[in-house]
Amino acid sequence: MSAYPKSLVKLIENLGAFSGVGKRTATKMAFDILDMDSSDAVEIAKAIVNAKKNIKECKKCHHISEDEYCEICKNEKRNQKVICVIDSSRDLIAIENTDEYNGLYHVLHGKISPLDGVRPKDLRIDSLIERIENENIEELILANSPTLEGEATALYISRIIKEKNILVSRIAHGVPVGGELEYSDSITLLKSIQGRKAIKL
Amino acid sequence: MSAYPKSLVKLIENLGAFSGVGKRTATKMAFDILDMDSSDAVEIAKAIVNAKKNIKECKKCHHISEDEYCEICKNEKRNQKVICVIDSSRDLIAIENTDEYNGLYHVLHGKISPLDGVRPKDLRIDSLIERIENENIEELILANSPTLEGEATALYISRIIKEKNILVSRIAHGVPVGGELEYSDSITLLKSIQGRKAIKL
Repeated sequence: MSAYPKSLVKLIENLGAFSGVGKRTATKMAFDILDMDSSDAVEIAKAIVNAKKNIKECKKCHHISEDEYCEICKNEKRNQKVICVIDSSRDLIAIENTDEYNGLYHVLHGKISPLDGVRPKDLRIDSLIERIENENIEELILANSPTLEGEATALYISRIIKEKNILVSRIAHGVPVGGELEYSDSITLLKSIQGRKAIKL
Repeated sequence: MSAYPKSLVKLIENLGAFSGVGKRTATKMAFDILDMDSSDAVEIAKAIVNAKKNIKECKKCHHISEDEYCEICKNEKRNQKVICVIDSSRDLIAIENTDEYNGLYHVLHGKISPLDGVRPKDLRIDSLIERIENENIEELILANSPTLEGEATALYISRIIKEKNILVSRIAHGVPVGGELEYSDSITLLKSIQGRKAIKL
């Protein structure tokens, strides 16, 4: 490594901060930068700084946004009576990509996980309760991820929402479309049998 | 994608400039940046700009360097009579990592490849000839990569060096250590048989 100039060593170290990027990939990326036009390299650097500077949380749903309110909360055509609760902005995009859901969202920014020291008050749950009390919400769809922590979070929220007298639902568990039954784990398979639906003939 | 803020879309596009980074990985990296401390993100941006600004070619061997001459050319303890010719600075590091070679290098920055429009004059061959004429070089090790273009480049250099009356060698081809014979391609196997060495008993 001593044969590398200091700035390159520093760059390789810094690029290692990306998740899943080891020394080998970081070195490859660093050489990509050396091979680029200066203007392109500066563009990347600028994009990093700008994203970090401009992007904050939507005041209402906590989705990432450059403005006070995100595009979804600002869109009056969306169903203002349904809130879909999710772990992260990435999950929001995944749901948006289905082109099916037209309601609002609430991004919790995490899951309850005592082992990692994440408690209910570390998530955006208080503001969710506030929204349910102040907006005219009729249904809450709990789309927390189907993991142990996600289930615990969904259960926690459904319990404190209970008395608010609104419909609370949980996304369906089952075998993924296109998946092979033999490769499904038994819990998923069990849930998919328990959640079976009558075929309308 | 419309649910992403503009700065994030821009960042994802820019990160896609790295080789082997598709939209999915770029999105993951962009979110890594949003999750980072601001100071860490700024560090990455700075490292990119600094590397691009500070790193140039060594005036003598064309290895990447922050100074006029690279660490290897500046090191008087190295054997000043041998030059190892390589395609790229990455190959230099690979050879340095063997801890075996103690001579100098000459980085060509490419291989002759008519199909890609790379001609001999696009490589650092003229300055190699100059070094052979002006420095007291006794041996030239052609460590161009063992590809069609690498072989062509090695052959080209060995021909124009012929009259200079110095020892010219080519790195050995053969089966990689730890590899299985059955998975070796036939040309490599042929070369390894042709290049067989007597075992001293």
